[in-house]
Amino acid sequence: MKITHIEHIGIAVKSLEESIAYYEGVLGLKCYAVEEVKEQRVKTAFFMVGQTKIELLESTDPEGPVGKFVEKKGEGVHHVAFATTGLEETLAEVEGKGVMLIDKKPRKGAEGLDIAFLHPKSTHGVLTELCENKNK
Amino acid sequence: MKITHIEHIGIAVKSLEESIAYYEGVLGLKCYAVEEVKEQRVKTAFFMVGQTKIELLESTDPEGPVGKFVEKKGEGVHHVAFATTGLEETLAEVEGKGVMLIDKKPRKGAEGLDIAFLHPKSTHGVLTELCENKNK
Repeated sequence: MKITHIEHIGIAVKSLEESIAYYEGVLGLKCYAVEEVKEQRVKTAFFMVGQTKIELLESTDPEGPVGKFVEKKGEGVHHVAFATTGLEETLAEVEGKGVMLIDKKPRKGAEGLDIAFLHPKSTHGVLTELCENKNK
Repeated sequence: MKITHIEHIGIAVKSLEESIAYYEGVLGLKCYAVEEVKEQRVKTAFFMVGQTKIELLESTDPEGPVGKFVEKKGEGVHHVAFATTGLEETLAEVEGKGVMLIDKKPRKGAEGLDIAFLHPKSTHGVLTELCENKNK
């Protein structure tokens, strides 16, 4: 696998509005996009921090993945996403090394990236996303 | 506050040895340093991923901060560290905006950085570290 950088850190929050106010007003970052990802039942807000994005995630459905996360664990880091190339081959490679895949094949995520998640049970506790930007 | 990039992501693990094997063998990253931070009761392992480091944290004491975290929540992301400048003034600024400081003044962290933590109760759930590299 060839990881180039950390694409984003996904952070589950209760209220996008309140959290955007914190990230802008206290940390001095600038929200450059708000996007709803219906398939994942979340509204997202993006901030650029050097090479890496902060992706805030507010659930639109208590039964969705982020809704359940916040119910169980509260607000906090939800996943870490690494930028890579050759995502489809990479998934086969890591599965061969014993990693449990949540997504067997790449699918479309926010901002048009190809993405796939690895299960935290086989990544030492970190819900791990791999991303490939084929638009570059 | 002037944040330039994400300095590192701190990840609590049970075994540095097993986790290093995963980050190197599966993700293809290279561990470039292992360091004990006695004051924090952890052993740390560092990987460079673009601009950002992954800092794995194994507790050396079940009563230490990372030991308690792993006992309560299991392995996973422990904190997010932002690189900034003028750390001392920045702490005064964020405290003035209602953020609870864990460290009222900068102290020395791993790799000789000046660091301070903000309490997750006032940062929407993310244990947040601010870092300044005065050696640059």
